[in-house]
Amino acid sequence: MKSVRSITELREQIQELKSSSHKKTVGLVPTMGYLHQGHASLIRAAKEKSDIVVVSIFVNPIQFGPKEDFETYPRDEKRDLAAAEEAGADLVFLPSVDTMYPKPTKTKIAVAEVTTGLCGASRPGHFDGVTTVVSKLFNIVQPDYAFFGMKDAQQVAVIQQMVFDLNFNVKVVPCPIIREEDGLALSSRNVYLSPEERSQALVLSRSLRETKAAIENGEIRTAREARELLVNKISESEIAVIDYVEVASFPELLTLEDGQPIMEREEPVLMALAVKFGRTRLIDNCLLSPKGE
Amino acid sequence: MKSVRSITELREQIQELKSSSHKKTVGLVPTMGYLHQGHASLIRAAKEKSDIVVVSIFVNPIQFGPKEDFETYPRDEKRDLAAAEEAGADLVFLPSVDTMYPKPTKTKIAVAEVTTGLCGASRPGHFDGVTTVVSKLFNIVQPDYAFFGMKDAQQVAVIQQMVFDLNFNVKVVPCPIIREEDGLALSSRNVYLSPEERSQALVLSRSLRETKAAIENGEIRTAREARELLVNKISESEIAVIDYVEVASFPELLTLEDGQPIMEREEPVLMALAVKFGRTRLIDNCLLSPKGE
Repeated sequence: MKSVRSITELREQIQELKSSSHKKTVGLVPTMGYLHQGHASLIRAAKEKSDIVVVSIFVNPIQFGPKEDFETYPRDEKRDLAAAEEAGADLVFLPSVDTMYPKPTKTKIAVAEVTTGLCGASRPGHFDGVTTVVSKLFNIVQPDYAFFGMKDAQQVAVIQQMVFDLNFNVKVVPCPIIREEDGLALSSRNVYLSPEERSQALVLSRSLRETKAAIENGEIRTAREARELLVNKISESEIAVIDYVEVASFPELLTLEDGQPIMEREEPVLMALAVKFGRTRLIDNCLLSPKGE
Repeated sequence: MKSVRSITELREQIQELKSSSHKKTVGLVPTMGYLHQGHASLIRAAKEKSDIVVVSIFVNPIQFGPKEDFETYPRDEKRDLAAAEEAGADLVFLPSVDTMYPKPTKTKIAVAEVTTGLCGASRPGHFDGVTTVVSKLFNIVQPDYAFFGMKDAQQVAVIQQMVFDLNFNVKVVPCPIIREEDGLALSSRNVYLSPEERSQALVLSRSLRETKAAIENGEIRTAREARELLVNKISESEIAVIDYVEVASFPELLTLEDGQPIMEREEPVLMALAVKFGRTRLIDNCLLSPKGE
């Protein structure tokens, strides 16, 4: 009998006892389907890092609020399968709602603090739904790596926190935002946009880009100035309705106080936006690494 | 590329892709230490069912209320290691609080409904602490089986619910209550009892045994009669202070209404007690399987 005190040592000992000679690694890309090039980039990143790539496609009802778009969320299984195959997936998991929730779940995973601001404030219960379904997928697939897009930066922070707190044996790999040539961040919800809204929505990426430049060239310095500049630039679109404009530490997601300088910090700073165009709510963000990392 | 819709098929496919030729099974016995013959019986059950037996010993601070006995909970590592070895453990995991909680956890797992009655009512937050630490242990050890004593029947129900809802790839194995020859259910907390309290505490197992007999021989029939008989019998001890006396469905843990007959049901019925003797709170229970299973 052996006794151990550290988590790493325990896992190594169990692996050794199990003595699987050649262990293949599994990468998971959890999606809600309607795959676009953002998802494809996650699948390619997974392919590069792991032996087996599993893509899950599941529109998770419990992360949608009662007035949100669960019913109308775009779905196209046939196209998704082709896109997953082309990007290099080995296995696609397409569970029904009944497969994932044979009975209404009595168990919920809640992450505190990182879920209070940003989308967590506008979408109560949303992140409990996300962490609950992601933990189910982790338990089902038991991946070594899981790949998430940085477009949902708060989701990345929340899942990293859950993985840390619950000791999931999974490495979360955040992947860069993929954009259209004109700057619009890819999103399955972009299909909701009318041509006019689609064109106005460019104000999101533009405001982030220009504010970042203004910070980097020293025109503005504090969190308050950054928020003001972002709000002003977004307001150039007459149909944009701001849900939030936030400047916060990452991954803690603590709001920077008005006077705090953005570029003289240890931690990265996230500038994040949620804005409605017509009935469509879009999010976008930009991560600033003050020390140039 | 393959696509699958069922959880079982996905897990099989991943296993096949990983192609581990000979997979050894792991059994986990999570404990808070101060091992007694109840724990030993769990370890022996684990040994019988799995190739590798992991015993965890961790007094989990987040499942204790502020006025409970976290600080004074009995601990004896040296004796525990000998007991684990003797019962057949292969690996003992003895993490420090700092190993399990390097930072205060922001993530909590909460199971609704099954946690509202019984100990859940008397110990608010207790089961969130239990499910959170058990999920951490499941993620750390990744066992095939996990063994829990039926003395904490509600704990068994709560963990089974969590495993079901979150798709943990773990089979929960409930094991029978182990008793002293005179009937007292084994508990690490029995060491707190004075000789007088120890002797009075026999009223717990006796009241359960006699009520069970009264139900089986038809003297009493309804949930209300069972509760009354239990309360009367416990009250034969002058120092017994009842926390709860409950008659509920198992594993749903819904209180049986007063008039409901106990023996004409599909589901098993749990008679459960929590009673204080001096400063020591003891629990005991008896599971009735109406259809004789």
